[in-house]
Amino acid sequence: MARKTVEPQRATIGLIAEEAGVSVPTVSKVLNGRPDVSVATRTRVEAVLARHSYRRRTRGPTRTGPPLIDLCFHELGNEWGLEIIRGVESAAAELGVGVVLTELGGKHRPEQAWLDAVLARRPIGVLLVLSSLSEAQRHQLESRSIPFVVIDTEGEPPKDVPTVGSNNWNGGLAATQHLLGLGHRRIGMISGPDDVLCSRARVDGYRSAHAEANVPYDESLVRWGNFDADMGYEHGRDLLTQPDPPTAIFAGSDVQALGVLRAARELKRRVPEDLSVVGYDNVPLTEWLGLTTIEQPLRAMSRTATQMLVALARGEEPPLRRVDLATSLVVRETTSPPTA
Amino acid sequence: MARKTVEPQRATIGLIAEEAGVSVPTVSKVLNGRPDVSVATRTRVEAVLARHSYRRRTRGPTRTGPPLIDLCFHELGNEWGLEIIRGVESAAAELGVGVVLTELGGKHRPEQAWLDAVLARRPIGVLLVLSSLSEAQRHQLESRSIPFVVIDTEGEPPKDVPTVGSNNWNGGLAATQHLLGLGHRRIGMISGPDDVLCSRARVDGYRSAHAEANVPYDESLVRWGNFDADMGYEHGRDLLTQPDPPTAIFAGSDVQALGVLRAARELKRRVPEDLSVVGYDNVPLTEWLGLTTIEQPLRAMSRTATQMLVALARGEEPPLRRVDLATSLVVRETTSPPTA
Repeated sequence: MARKTVEPQRATIGLIAEEAGVSVPTVSKVLNGRPDVSVATRTRVEAVLARHSYRRRTRGPTRTGPPLIDLCFHELGNEWGLEIIRGVESAAAELGVGVVLTELGGKHRPEQAWLDAVLARRPIGVLLVLSSLSEAQRHQLESRSIPFVVIDTEGEPPKDVPTVGSNNWNGGLAATQHLLGLGHRRIGMISGPDDVLCSRARVDGYRSAHAEANVPYDESLVRWGNFDADMGYEHGRDLLTQPDPPTAIFAGSDVQALGVLRAARELKRRVPEDLSVVGYDNVPLTEWLGLTTIEQPLRAMSRTATQMLVALARGEEPPLRRVDLATSLVVRETTSPPTA
Repeated sequence: MARKTVEPQRATIGLIAEEAGVSVPTVSKVLNGRPDVSVATRTRVEAVLARHSYRRRTRGPTRTGPPLIDLCFHELGNEWGLEIIRGVESAAAELGVGVVLTELGGKHRPEQAWLDAVLARRPIGVLLVLSSLSEAQRHQLESRSIPFVVIDTEGEPPKDVPTVGSNNWNGGLAATQHLLGLGHRRIGMISGPDDVLCSRARVDGYRSAHAEANVPYDESLVRWGNFDADMGYEHGRDLLTQPDPPTAIFAGSDVQALGVLRAARELKRRVPEDLSVVGYDNVPLTEWLGLTTIEQPLRAMSRTATQMLVALARGEEPPLRRVDLATSLVVRETTSPPTA
């Protein structure tokens, strides 16, 4: 089919139908995520919609009930996920919007079934947490005028994807500066997966802190994994049982630090006397554990992302499309100068 | 208006309208939770609906998108709440149902605004966590054929409210039997609010364990509060600084136990050598803390409640309307015989 150059606002459902070789009701079904369309037909229609950068004028027939936001998690981790839920829920409640919660069971990219449900549900927008959409999926949302905002990017999203994150590089820097400032010279670091942006940014901050202090760092003390307690435990045990163990460990999350603390306890290392430990996130339980950590303003990030999404849904252009909120060091009881 | 005795299935919208002195479209608006009806009119219509035990035949016009469940929390606490969310989310995903998440900001009873949103949204059912509905609110849901199930009752719900809980009395008994069995004779107990059923059941279990072992208990060692860490901390400090302190503390939740552990740490009491501590819930973090606790099968409870709700929504009668899942003792590292 020859590519027609048509102004985006001129493409009508009729034109789309003609070009795709289907009826207008069929195009409407695809737009509304109805299941009774063959995969081949749907693909063909979506391609034409994308080619014309088709934008539905409104979200579709008036939906029943107050507007909804779709909040989609890669996986509902732990306290970290709960802080985000609370931030979104509180901002949404203030704006009179409901929240539909979905989890992708560990996948970073949703499947078509999830997207179909969203298209049919017609939320005013979608919030993605540690999950991203393919180009094709983005087009599907855009053609239905359903905006989306990403919280805490897992990769490097294209420039025009509205994103709210926090300054991970600064967080890695601050934690490491704190430990170097206390006198530590062998600092273990356990980060998240190495294909996730926030992990790499924090490790870069860790490296930069060493360079800034003119202290060489040992690459073998840097470990990658996930943000869970089991990884903190395994890497913690491994780091602490080598011949020249680190005197401090900077964990990728507070929950991961739980695992590190357990490893230390089992190996009879007192914290902080024998081992300093720093976490990341500053989830509520850290106050009770007395864990030194980096505050990641998860609730503020989630509120900001929600407000940004609602503004986009109203057709407003938010002042900034990419916002990183500041992290800060919270010094408590698990760090001290190395003994001897 | 004289009370008409009409068979429930004979009451039609027309009859309701006539009796309430309004038009049929107005009754329809009230049924659909539309905001453009005066409070006086709405109240009058609801009264007539209740009087006739009116039951809408279906949930209303076909809603767009896959079916939704409304999951409503009294407040999104902490890891406890997250376990419930995960249980509901996983069961709902298997059943092809979406989950709308709401929090009442600490209130045990939702306001009309929440209920209106639900009536307009037309979920297939509502799950309530530590929140309950007034008689009038129940009628409103019933007249729209929207079933509801309660998870972990906060009070004594009427017999025909479908409920899924866990055996709190057994949980209180098991934890206390464990401590008495280790040799403890002065056991502190910090429970939840005294007007919440699960708190009282656990304390009764604690008392019964003492009676069974022929050990007198000191009522001043039983404290009431909330299930949060701050209450564990305050009561913990208080119990441990009295002249004849307990040698063990049974906390109302794992999160509360975090506060108790901190109090012990500050007062230089080693756990378990100087103080045994038992939590409640068995949330994931307890594995890393090595906390002895009572497993409350939160995810299984939530899955069961979700499946029960979907069955009710299909018009099926679940085999049981009230189910309590079993609790069990999980012995880890924070309990031992009292020293000397």
